[in-house]
Amino acid sequence: MSHSKSYTLAEIAEKLGVKVHGNPDHEIQGIAALNEAALHQISFLDNPKYQPQLLNTKAGAVILAEKYLPDCPNNALISEHPYVTYAKAAQLFWHKPEPYTGIHPSAIIDETAFIGKDVSIGPFAVIGRRTKILDGAIIGAHCVVSDDCEIGAETELMPRVTLYHEVSVGAQCVIHSGVVLGSDGFGFAPGKDGYEKIPQLGGVKIGDNVEIGANTTIDRGALNDTVIAKGVKLDNQIQIGHNVKIGENTVIAGCTGIAGSTEIGSNCMIGGGSCINGHIKITDQVMLLGMTGVINSINTSGVYGSATPLLPRTEWQKVAVRIRQLNDLAKTVQTLKKDQTNTD
Amino acid sequence: MSHSKSYTLAEIAEKLGVKVHGNPDHEIQGIAALNEAALHQISFLDNPKYQPQLLNTKAGAVILAEKYLPDCPNNALISEHPYVTYAKAAQLFWHKPEPYTGIHPSAIIDETAFIGKDVSIGPFAVIGRRTKILDGAIIGAHCVVSDDCEIGAETELMPRVTLYHEVSVGAQCVIHSGVVLGSDGFGFAPGKDGYEKIPQLGGVKIGDNVEIGANTTIDRGALNDTVIAKGVKLDNQIQIGHNVKIGENTVIAGCTGIAGSTEIGSNCMIGGGSCINGHIKITDQVMLLGMTGVINSINTSGVYGSATPLLPRTEWQKVAVRIRQLNDLAKTVQTLKKDQTNTD
Amino acid sequence: MSHSKSYTLAEIAEKLGVKVHGNPDHEIQGIAALNEAALHQISFLDNPKYQPQLLNTKAGAVILAEKYLPDCPNNALISEHPYVTYAKAAQLFWHKPEPYTGIHPSAIIDETAFIGKDVSIGPFAVIGRRTKILDGAIIGAHCVVSDDCEIGAETELMPRVTLYHEVSVGAQCVIHSGVVLGSDGFGFAPGKDGYEKIPQLGGVKIGDNVEIGANTTIDRGALNDTVIAKGVKLDNQIQIGHNVKIGENTVIAGCTGIAGSTEIGSNCMIGGGSCINGHIKITDQVMLLGMTGVINSINTSGVYGSATPLLPRTEWQKVAVRIRQLNDLAKTVQTLKKDQTNTD
Repeated sequence: MSHSKSYTLAEIAEKLGVKVHGNPDHEIQGIAALNEAALHQISFLDNPKYQPQLLNTKAGAVILAEKYLPDCPNNALISEHPYVTYAKAAQLFWHKPEPYTGIHPSAIIDETAFIGKDVSIGPFAVIGRRTKILDGAIIGAHCVVSDDCEIGAETELMPRVTLYHEVSVGAQCVIHSGVVLGSDGFGFAPGKDGYEKIPQLGGVKIGDNVEIGANTTIDRGALNDTVIAKGVKLDNQIQIGHNVKIGENTVIAGCTGIAGSTEIGSNCMIGGGSCINGHIKITDQVMLLGMTGVINSINTSGVYGSATPLLPRTEWQKVAVRIRQLNDLAKTVQTLKKDQTNTD
Repeated sequence: MSHSKSYTLAEIAEKLGVKVHGNPDHEIQGIAALNEAALHQISFLDNPKYQPQLLNTKAGAVILAEKYLPDCPNNALISEHPYVTYAKAAQLFWHKPEPYTGIHPSAIIDETAFIGKDVSIGPFAVIGRRTKILDGAIIGAHCVVSDDCEIGAETELMPRVTLYHEVSVGAQCVIHSGVVLGSDGFGFAPGKDGYEKIPQLGGVKIGDNVEIGANTTIDRGALNDTVIAKGVKLDNQIQIGHNVKIGENTVIAGCTGIAGSTEIGSNCMIGGGSCINGHIKITDQVMLLGMTGVINSINTSGVYGSATPLLPRTEWQKVAVRIRQLNDLAKTVQTLKKDQTNTD
Repeated sequence: MSHSKSYTLAEIAEKLGVKVHGNPDHEIQGIAALNEAALHQISFLDNPKYQPQLLNTKAGAVILAEKYLPDCPNNALISEHPYVTYAKAAQLFWHKPEPYTGIHPSAIIDETAFIGKDVSIGPFAVIGRRTKILDGAIIGAHCVVSDDCEIGAETELMPRVTLYHEVSVGAQCVIHSGVVLGSDGFGFAPGKDGYEKIPQLGGVKIGDNVEIGANTTIDRGALNDTVIAKGVKLDNQIQIGHNVKIGENTVIAGCTGIAGSTEIGSNCMIGGGSCINGHIKITDQVMLLGMTGVINSINTSGVYGSATPLLPRTEWQKVAVRIRQLNDLAKTVQTLKKDQTNTD
């Protein structure tokens, strides 16, 4: 969709704090991928995988590291951190969708709720008792913010987000559609006639600058709160159990599940589809490759993985049989080794 | 639940383009599984696993391949493709729930939206600025269709679906409850003070005849659009990252995650619980068994898998230890082999 | 958050059916974890992992097994089942959030619906034709309960739950936000021009005392119903395919997927992130460790697993290569064994 912002390369370079190589007066009206950009658009190269696309790009300018300059067929913006520079360039051309401004008359706001200045509340939103919506916050259509919650300043809830009671979200967060915060933790004690429900008395506390992806769920604590520290970024469809604690600036990719009472440090990067056991600790700066299963605590920073490699079906089926027999295979090898040693 | 349609076997056979074996005047009022069907119902046999149920079925007629005819205790409809014939028979007896017809007075429709002929819009639905709802489309209760979207003719949004701005859905699609289309892709660049958000400027484009299961999420593109081609069928709780492209008639089972910028070909079948890495390509007609992890591109059509086999806990724990030691085991075997060769 | 209930230890012990060790007149106003509890709070020890916290707890009393009494620095309640006793104690101090009572005037209830005594229906809820909401049930804000459904007595639907038509939920259930019950099963038959949709004619039947976690989805049956027996507890983001049957008191942790037509017995415990194939049977009292893949039926009760162990990346990459070569490795070992036997 075309939107009407326009800058010269010199203007863009100044806003982004980088240098122009080529024509500083070239006019840029948008941003696009290397293989789709036209002369009036800027593009970027970060992942070396896309270097071949650089040679043939039609982009009017490309944000790139100096070493790629010889391969660039047109103007360039030279950056030591092309991905960060691209992020800023994209903000320049972002035509942010207009929210519903003001309080929509169909919203139902309890009379004991506190609504700050410049708050927007969309159609059919429901705001509970004693809940505080701080200045500049945006509550999307169909959101349900239950009793005794707090939404920080300039935080945006996209349409159709649920907060149970006693959930607090910091400032400048983005919570995407379908997110559920503060649902009951999965706590049941085996009784004589089936399971006995354990009331979940804690809440959820989310720091500033957190982003939470679509349909992600975060359970309330059993006794203490579930805590997501500031700067954490959660992708879509992540499940976070009760009493989990996640440290600052940790980033978690989609479809990951974290069982109850586990603590994850700061500046971690968790790959998509990972499963993390309950009641364990993962230290700071741990990176998990995609689809990693974590059973025990990880006490040393570093990169970890556990996902098995893919093979054509018939080959994999043979491998799978061998995996089942692996303990026997290892014992056979031990015996062979001993026998050979004896033979020598 | 009993509904009041009734056909003779001859009538059904004609509508389905197959042959009757037995009494063409037998009256059929419904469809049921082999082990639950009664004399007034038709059933089917496709998966050979259920052949034993055929021998004892009480069904008044069974849709089956000719080779199973000797095992059929009652009338039969003979089909070369029993599953397709069953699909058509089920359509005959489908008592489709009545939608809310017309525009419910509680729906909030922006005055700049375009609403086609014979459109139904349910209670509390919200339709944004400049959005187009084409002829015969059905928008369920509580749907939020944001600004600048398009919903194709005869497409049905079940209750409680969210479309962010600039999402287009083709004709004759079915989008199930809880689906989120066009949420921000997971894009952050590491800055000095935590992560910098990369605005997601692309949209989502969905072709005709696509079905999307409950609580599935599809992110908008970072620069280009995320694209789901016509005829694609997505099960529940699938996560599709930004800029993913999925080819025609590809079918994906539940709980699968696809990371950003990956392209999947046409006529693929992706098993449930699979995880597919970002920035890779999977060619046409690839089948993945359930729970497969895909790290690199797949350039050859065929069937692939990577899921480990299950064992009782104590045995599996031994195998898991051996997996950790597998590189050492392999080296030991190499040494043994070399030594033995030397000994010979 | 502080709430105003207060009991002496003697009172608590009587309500819970356990014995006090220490001062029966000690006043307790709340419940907290061992490492966070203060003198006016009670705590508990169940998981032995937390025993070190017992020695330093500031709790006014601790629920524990008799053998831990020597390590308890303050009063104790002695229980043979500390986790169950804790569950009951938590119920004592549970300040349950007040629901919206009565029928909110914004709710849209079809005139043919039946609404029992003492039913609460929240803002913007939609109740369909001929649907029955039995005595004491609570329907949260923004719930959509479609035509011909039944909600059992004292069952609570949290905000933003969708029931498609012909779904019945038993008594005293809790259904969390974002849940979708009765969406179409994933049924398509390959036709000449893409896939043919198979109408999903069955419904969903859910027994009494079932709890279903946030954003979990349960598809309606293709022909028969999908059935969840009484006492089943489902965590968040579980996907249950069409015609699945789950037996009484089975407990399933988050992010698990169960493909269509599979039957799971009673009193099973399914670990999080597991994937269970379609058309298989799992017998009673089966426990699956987290992230287990189940391809074939399990006919023997017991504990099973299949998740691979985690390693640092460089080590794991070597192991992954060896896994791919495992069939060859096993053959080499067989040859070595044969050769050595011949040599001997």
